[in-house]
Amino acid sequence: MEPLSSQAKLDWVIDALAMEVAEPSSGPLSRRLYLGLRERIQAGRLAPGSRLPSSRRLARELCLGRNTVLAALEQLVAEGFLETRPGAGTFVVDLPQLAGASSAPGAASEQALAPAGEAPETRDVTLSSRGTRLLGYSPCSDVRPGVLTPGLPALDRFPQALWQRLMRRHLHRAPTEWLGYQTQGGVPALREALCDYLRLSRSVRCRPEQILIVQGAQQGFELITRLLTDPGDRVWVEEPGYGGAKACFEAAGLELQAVPVDDEGLRVTADLPAPRLIQVTPSHQYPSGVTMTLGRRLALLETAEKHGAWIVEDDYDSEFRYGQGPIAALQGLDNDGRVLYVGTFSKVLYPGLRLGYVVLPEALVDACRRANARLHREGQYVVQSALAEFIAAGHFSRHVRRMRDCYRDRQARLRDALAPAVRAGLELSEGQAGMHLVAWLDDHATEAALVDRGLYHGIGLSPLSTYYLAPPGRPGLVLGYAGASEEEIDRAGGWLCREWLALRAERGASSMTKAATEPGARA
Amino acid sequence: MEPLSSQAKLDWVIDALAMEVAEPSSGPLSRRLYLGLRERIQAGRLAPGSRLPSSRRLARELCLGRNTVLAALEQLVAEGFLETRPGAGTFVVDLPQLAGASSAPGAASEQALAPAGEAPETRDVTLSSRGTRLLGYSPCSDVRPGVLTPGLPALDRFPQALWQRLMRRHLHRAPTEWLGYQTQGGVPALREALCDYLRLSRSVRCRPEQILIVQGAQQGFELITRLLTDPGDRVWVEEPGYGGAKACFEAAGLELQAVPVDDEGLRVTADLPAPRLIQVTPSHQYPSGVTMTLGRRLALLETAEKHGAWIVEDDYDSEFRYGQGPIAALQGLDNDGRVLYVGTFSKVLYPGLRLGYVVLPEALVDACRRANARLHREGQYVVQSALAEFIAAGHFSRHVRRMRDCYRDRQARLRDALAPAVRAGLELSEGQAGMHLVAWLDDHATEAALVDRGLYHGIGLSPLSTYYLAPPGRPGLVLGYAGASEEEIDRAGGWLCREWLALRAERGASSMTKAATEPGARA
Repeated sequence: MEPLSSQAKLDWVIDALAMEVAEPSSGPLSRRLYLGLRERIQAGRLAPGSRLPSSRRLARELCLGRNTVLAALEQLVAEGFLETRPGAGTFVVDLPQLAGASSAPGAASEQALAPAGEAPETRDVTLSSRGTRLLGYSPCSDVRPGVLTPGLPALDRFPQALWQRLMRRHLHRAPTEWLGYQTQGGVPALREALCDYLRLSRSVRCRPEQILIVQGAQQGFELITRLLTDPGDRVWVEEPGYGGAKACFEAAGLELQAVPVDDEGLRVTADLPAPRLIQVTPSHQYPSGVTMTLGRRLALLETAEKHGAWIVEDDYDSEFRYGQGPIAALQGLDNDGRVLYVGTFSKVLYPGLRLGYVVLPEALVDACRRANARLHREGQYVVQSALAEFIAAGHFSRHVRRMRDCYRDRQARLRDALAPAVRAGLELSEGQAGMHLVAWLDDHATEAALVDRGLYHGIGLSPLSTYYLAPPGRPGLVLGYAGASEEEIDRAGGWLCREWLALRAERGASSMTKAATEPGARA
Repeated sequence: MEPLSSQAKLDWVIDALAMEVAEPSSGPLSRRLYLGLRERIQAGRLAPGSRLPSSRRLARELCLGRNTVLAALEQLVAEGFLETRPGAGTFVVDLPQLAGASSAPGAASEQALAPAGEAPETRDVTLSSRGTRLLGYSPCSDVRPGVLTPGLPALDRFPQALWQRLMRRHLHRAPTEWLGYQTQGGVPALREALCDYLRLSRSVRCRPEQILIVQGAQQGFELITRLLTDPGDRVWVEEPGYGGAKACFEAAGLELQAVPVDDEGLRVTADLPAPRLIQVTPSHQYPSGVTMTLGRRLALLETAEKHGAWIVEDDYDSEFRYGQGPIAALQGLDNDGRVLYVGTFSKVLYPGLRLGYVVLPEALVDACRRANARLHREGQYVVQSALAEFIAAGHFSRHVRRMRDCYRDRQARLRDALAPAVRAGLELSEGQAGMHLVAWLDDHATEAALVDRGLYHGIGLSPLSTYYLAPPGRPGLVLGYAGASEEEIDRAGGWLCREWLALRAERGASSMTKAATEPGARA
């Protein structure tokens, strides 16, 4: 309860002025005084239990108005740093934690406690075990996508002006209640437009009520996983397969079982342990590009029924099929209500849109809608509404058709650029659909060398082996041609071709025959 | 391999015509033929292995162009329903699953297999155990919010015209790369504007790089939970507390430990089992409205350090404080990098915006950004950019100030409407901040009766007991006044007042004295 030393008072004056000069943006005077006092209390320089001078005296010594001082003191009282005792004055609160901090007063303790306005010290942290596994599927955030990075559509071909016109109109028209929380499962007009589209072009069997609009396919996976699985449950994933889905399953605490993919799609064998969930990309397997045969589809449905398992059908890019029309969805073959069909607008329109959908079995509609509204909240109703008009007015089909032609051309261009390597033995996937090709390589060293060297040239080669759950995985490159311009494809494809031929020459053609690849092959 | 019976052929013709008439929107003729054929194959009416008539003959009998027929057949071949054998013709594929379906041909089997274009049968399903618990926190989706439903800001007071102008401008300006996937943690301008705001008005200590923009606070909880906890880990939640956070923890497989809240905030005792995560709303406890004292805050930080636990500080509505300025955040007291500060724009602006943020300890920045980009994807960069200008240009502070006045008035109005009941013994929370009041009731029967009767009058009374983890919880009502107009408040408040007085009279004042409530009280 000792009075303040004149030294401390002097400190204040100096510091208050210093703050004033150093942080002209830090708000009104009372705010600066509040911060200065609080910092000193936290740092223990104003000892717990000590009495403050009267507000009148403080105002005089700090050259501040009395109301300014009172405002700062009141805030500190409200926050519990100070307390007023009737008839006795204003005191620094007497809390053991503050006393602990003040046991070594002065500069040393001020260093131990970070001053207000600056971030506390960095320290090493331990993530959870699932968090660590999850990060294994999460690319470093500072790597920018390069040319041929898979997953990107032709952003330069998106009809921006048309879309912005629609957005402006729907922004203007949006009812006030769309500002609030929504629980309808998405804008009805969008679900209706989508239902027509899915029935017609994807042979999905559904009513609009079965469609749940989500903020991207990933959110659909998340919802399904949490509602239908418990930690420790087993999920079958494609080997090789999509990292985003695997990250979601890890985050949900599931046990991942790799199921190999061959040229008929997912190859289910009797010795596989029973799953609770099965994740599959039957229309265009990611990343191998295989289309699952009808026989395998029917067998998979039978297997799911036998195990009482759910199937998540991820139909991410089947709009872009270059031969016949799109292959009918697995969902359309399901008579048992076991398939949850997940679609996205990230590939057909653009990823930044953050809209996708899940077609739910009737029996799951209510549960999924409720859990989604709780876990993720619904949103973007204006965007959904604009998208509904985009589809209903035919812009969507037109854009899909145009992109199909564009991607067919871009794939052909990439094949052309790689032709010399292909003639020399480089194997490419069939590419009857989608936005990427796979180039199978003979060894992991070649894969690593090409990926590394590509980075220096702004070329984003995605190593196939990282798509495998069980190391080492089959070596190769996933080449996304959809988002690259013709010139970029020529440049990157030409570079890759030359680089592959050079590596081949370096290592000797003998070690790179087809036979040599077989032991490493998994698909 | 028997040829088709003339009966079957006749069926086709009739059905094809029937489809044509019934579904004029079902697409081109070849599509209708494809669907008709496929439905019959799936239903077993075209036996596995049977040979189809030539395309020429089919075209003639169905009165269709030959190209139309060929297109349909090719699609069915591509999908594996038909196969061509060179020199022999086109056959229905011979798959055991199809044979199984066809073992009981005719109408019966067609009923068992849903026809294409319609949804499969509904069946009872078993959700996962966490899914079931999760639904316990998820309100029914068909209950529309009523007057006084908590959590809604004054949507009618949001400056829509100004916001739409900003949105239009930023839509127009958006760089093409914003259409793609983003991994920056949010638009830099927004993180900078937010950082200034948080430092100044919330005493949060951070750099812009520590801020991660997420699509609502809920997504922030999800991210934190999955990265920092494993299934089975324990999380401390406030009792009573926020359902959204509890749903997230259930979904992550955590064990929830209720920690009581009294009039100083969360009351941590030595006998509580060690947590991995602590969820807390220190500025304005949800729903009780208590502000956590400085002593409790410091003790909580100490406890977290002792257990090596993380603290999630949910600061959802502290902008609206009616006495002093907002109370400083717990994050600002943390010198150990244990507090993750979660904020949202749902209350300050509007819920449909779907934007929130997490202020991360330095050590978690990279991991959280990567995991977020993988699990949730970043998005809404145009909205983020518009919001950055909204903040930087001062519209945000102005709106907060205006809403603070508005909510203060609305709260006063609700108090006025309830005054007769208060005089007769109804207890209301202090209401020094925020968007809701709590009315404590004496028994669960009164709570249930008021909630039920309110529904009939479009009044959304939120039962306090449902905010408790351990039943039965303390009875009461959470009354959201922020989103209700003055007239609505008068009407709903007046109704509630009369109804409460009537119930009190009915049940006899003797059983409703304060003493009678104590055994049921938990907070």
